[in-house]
Amino acid sequence: MSVLNDAARAVVEGPGLAHLVTLNEDGSPQASVVWIGLDGDELVTAHLGAYQKVRNVERDPRVVVSIETGERDPRGLHPYLVVSGTARVQEGGAADLLDRLAQTYLGAGSSMAPPNPPPGYVLRITPERVSGVGPWR
Amino acid sequence: MSVLNDAARAVVEGPGLAHLVTLNEDGSPQASVVWIGLDGDELVTAHLGAYQKVRNVERDPRVVVSIETGERDPRGLHPYLVVSGTARVQEGGAADLLDRLAQTYLGAGSSMAPPNPPPGYVLRITPERVSGVGPWR
Repeated sequence: MSVLNDAARAVVEGPGLAHLVTLNEDGSPQASVVWIGLDGDELVTAHLGAYQKVRNVERDPRVVVSIETGERDPRGLHPYLVVSGTARVQEGGAADLLDRLAQTYLGAGSSMAPPNPPPGYVLRITPERVSGVGPWR
Repeated sequence: MSVLNDAARAVVEGPGLAHLVTLNEDGSPQASVVWIGLDGDELVTAHLGAYQKVRNVERDPRVVVSIETGERDPRGLHPYLVVSGTARVQEGGAADLLDRLAQTYLGAGSSMAPPNPPPGYVLRITPERVSGVGPWR
């Protein structure tokens, strides 16, 4: 059974941007903001190049992702989802995933992949622990 | 001279939430979403209790903060600021800082600190490197 309940899955599949954190070679944290989606029980992100976060995951698979829900509770505070997990690098498939995620982040019928895209990389994250503020703890 | 230019300072002082990452004892990344502001050249966050992130910083000061700008570029993509740095824990001052930040995050005249608040902790982050997507690289 996945650690993600339906509310958490809805956040991952929604239009909130993912703050993706990997670990640099010296152990320091590295953050970037990316599009994210689900493929079965895995969180997936697309990368056209072998960026630092891809190289980091190849060396140390521990990652964390945080996503704002865009909502506010009655006190004015903002629910958010944090997923800690283990990532692996899949070679290829970046352009297809980018175009799929573009439907959510840019709108139906949008495209993001460049012409003649490189195969790129997909990060596939197995969620292990959920935290944050919202109905997923 | 601070590594933060005026555009970066404006993001830190604006209403964007901060995704604050610290390092757990086993070296894995820990993320939470917090209010953030500036005090001189330091980024500051307020914590009423000795939460995991406070204990983490006491052990390993390396942190990273990422903040969405809430804007979109002509392609529909979202500029964001990432600040890597070194944090230290200041005891006390949490309630005053929470109430100051409430002016930005909840609106003028707002209050967030509870009655008879504990002294709490302020994390003070010295920025060392700026990344992300925007006019601050």
